[in-house]
Amino acid sequence: MSGTTLDDYTDRYAARIGGMAQSEIRALFAVASRPEIVSLAGGNPYTAALPLPELADMFARLIRDQGTEALLYCPGQGSTRLREQICEVMADSGIDSTSGASPDDVVVTVGAQQGLDLLARVFCDPGDIVLAEGPTYVGALGVFSAAQATVVHVEMDADGLIPEALEAAIVASPRPPKLLYTVPTYQNPTGVTLSAPRRAEVLDICARHGVLVIEDDPYGMLGFEGDPPRPLRADTGDGVFYLGTFSKIFAAGLRVGWVLAPPAVRDKLVMASEAQILCPSALTQAAVTEYLATMPWRQQVKAFQVLYRERRDALLESLADYMPQDMTWTRPGGGLFVWADLPPGIHSKKMLPAALTQRVAYVPGTGFYANGDGGGQMRLNFSFPSADRIREGVRRLAGVVTTTAELRDTFAR
Amino acid sequence: MSGTTLDDYTDRYAARIGGMAQSEIRALFAVASRPEIVSLAGGNPYTAALPLPELADMFARLIRDQGTEALLYCPGQGSTRLREQICEVMADSGIDSTSGASPDDVVVTVGAQQGLDLLARVFCDPGDIVLAEGPTYVGALGVFSAAQATVVHVEMDADGLIPEALEAAIVASPRPPKLLYTVPTYQNPTGVTLSAPRRAEVLDICARHGVLVIEDDPYGMLGFEGDPPRPLRADTGDGVFYLGTFSKIFAAGLRVGWVLAPPAVRDKLVMASEAQILCPSALTQAAVTEYLATMPWRQQVKAFQVLYRERRDALLESLADYMPQDMTWTRPGGGLFVWADLPPGIHSKKMLPAALTQRVAYVPGTGFYANGDGGGQMRLNFSFPSADRIREGVRRLAGVVTTTAELRDTFAR
Repeated sequence: MSGTTLDDYTDRYAARIGGMAQSEIRALFAVASRPEIVSLAGGNPYTAALPLPELADMFARLIRDQGTEALLYCPGQGSTRLREQICEVMADSGIDSTSGASPDDVVVTVGAQQGLDLLARVFCDPGDIVLAEGPTYVGALGVFSAAQATVVHVEMDADGLIPEALEAAIVASPRPPKLLYTVPTYQNPTGVTLSAPRRAEVLDICARHGVLVIEDDPYGMLGFEGDPPRPLRADTGDGVFYLGTFSKIFAAGLRVGWVLAPPAVRDKLVMASEAQILCPSALTQAAVTEYLATMPWRQQVKAFQVLYRERRDALLESLADYMPQDMTWTRPGGGLFVWADLPPGIHSKKMLPAALTQRVAYVPGTGFYANGDGGGQMRLNFSFPSADRIREGVRRLAGVVTTTAELRDTFAR
Repeated sequence: MSGTTLDDYTDRYAARIGGMAQSEIRALFAVASRPEIVSLAGGNPYTAALPLPELADMFARLIRDQGTEALLYCPGQGSTRLREQICEVMADSGIDSTSGASPDDVVVTVGAQQGLDLLARVFCDPGDIVLAEGPTYVGALGVFSAAQATVVHVEMDADGLIPEALEAAIVASPRPPKLLYTVPTYQNPTGVTLSAPRRAEVLDICARHGVLVIEDDPYGMLGFEGDPPRPLRADTGDGVFYLGTFSKIFAAGLRVGWVLAPPAVRDKLVMASEAQILCPSALTQAAVTEYLATMPWRQQVKAFQVLYRERRDALLESLADYMPQDMTWTRPGGGLFVWADLPPGIHSKKMLPAALTQRVAYVPGTGFYANGDGGGQMRLNFSFPSADRIREGVRRLAGVVTTTAELRDTFAR
């Protein structure tokens, strides 16, 4: 980006702009995408595994046969056919008609990100309190910051959100929290999954205290050690809004996601979405419809699972092989990420320049907290780089960690 | 939409939800799209005029050659190549490097609608005053309502916004208006174009009073009686934010538009966009890039101009042939719409059920005002229906107007 740094508009901006800051992750991506750098920083699914020649034919057919419609505006709620198919996809993980899910209650969005932003628009006034895992998805921090809501983190462990910590956070809150935002399955950034017994507890606590739940589930179908627990939404339609996306099970570049919400809320989401984008792309929706209807999409999800499992194993094995003894990390059963605790006294954000110099990138843990925590942690991605690149990246990173630990010890003397 | 009408969440919604109401236009579209109805209500470009076989080949090539990238996430600001091409497109209408336009200052958005919403997010606090033509684009009313800003309409005539009325509205405003939202060329809904001398006056008035200008220009390339005056942005980079879109010159179903804004504002727009949608679709951006680079897009724009001119003529001629003497209408030199004044005492919204019964649809003028005005007007579209359908639609509509006028006279006696 070029241009003057003078800002002639400083006295004109809306108040909400004050809290907005560029995501550390996005700023990092520009550097991390250089070819000489092994990037464990990304969050990209591995699109090269998609059957491109077949998809090319599919798109050609779509434009030839349905182009007149696919190149036009469509209803703000999204196409009827796609909303039906979304219900079929959700039924695979247990959210079906017995859970009260219906195509009428689905709103198609520009990725799950827009779904989350719409929920924040509909529910969050400035000053509202939103609970979220600590750490949480960086994009959720952006949404709630733009809504001028305050994010309060709730502690988690290897089984996800700690119910006692959740209840304590609600009780200690200066005003009743309005929402819990949670990624219960193969969470970004930790890879951790909320256990089945805790799911019931979390739902119970939120219901008792009148806290609405946003369940963000982009990774639920990407498990590689058996099925994850049922989504929260599968067992209650009451006060749980469910976010889904085709970004990880098909293609992120289409920007097709959805919200499942009860009728009154759904109407407001549709109005808010029309004000925001008029309607989602008819073309990318039609592409998802064709893909689900004519191609072996479940088989493709299995292929992603096999691939990511192999890469996760490469990451876990090389961490064990190369990293110092006093470092620990999560062991995800699915998803795209591992979360690592650095040896004491090492700050992940301060260490990043050294890592980039050694041609390896990660995301410092601070990006996933609203309150500056996370300096002792980092997020490592295993979905995009090959197993060999992952091993090489961890080898380089271990060198940086070891050197940084030696420097720490030198200056501590 | 089905489901209960009970709303369990009424005490939870954000304050901004109070002002949101379903657009009359969108509710109308569901009815108006029935095949037996001649819809003069829409705003769809005529995508059937696009070369679908060639586009099918283009999409196939795109997926085959660039699929891995086009199906991934992309930068929040949009693709570099597309932003360069957008500058070439803008240069055609006079916004070029001498106007200070640069690819660095372009933010790609989900249609111009998202661009407008982002500007409102960045600039509008609740209670802010936004000036707009009366009538104005319905989607702008939705954006500013969601931002809890108050829209104040400024009178226009056959040469667009009336400068004296603009200055009077600014002076009379209880607090300084923050923004002027304007569609200066082939406006939606009136088809009216702001004259060149008035453009200079409007810029001067806004600069003197510190009112920022949002110039929305979706139709500027769709003139069929010579070139329109230069965009406002062509002659000043100071305080004018420019919105463009490929919806009318290529395909609305791709949802690719843009904002051109100075660097400080652009950075905030990018952050706001990342919070809202993460990034625009890499695929639809790549499709626009391929289309501009490999297909005769300017020739296609000419084809749209010829087609729409023919259809506008059909509309104007049939209005003259069929409508009562005391009805008047605009004579647009481009764009998609004619704005008609009904005979005195006829209310366009109240007349709509009778029109639908006679199998013709239009949009009542009330949809284009924030203050309930527009009951004496209607918007008629000429881009989508064929010339024959337009004539038939106007014939039906004239019958309804005549009958309604007779009823009015009967009850007035």
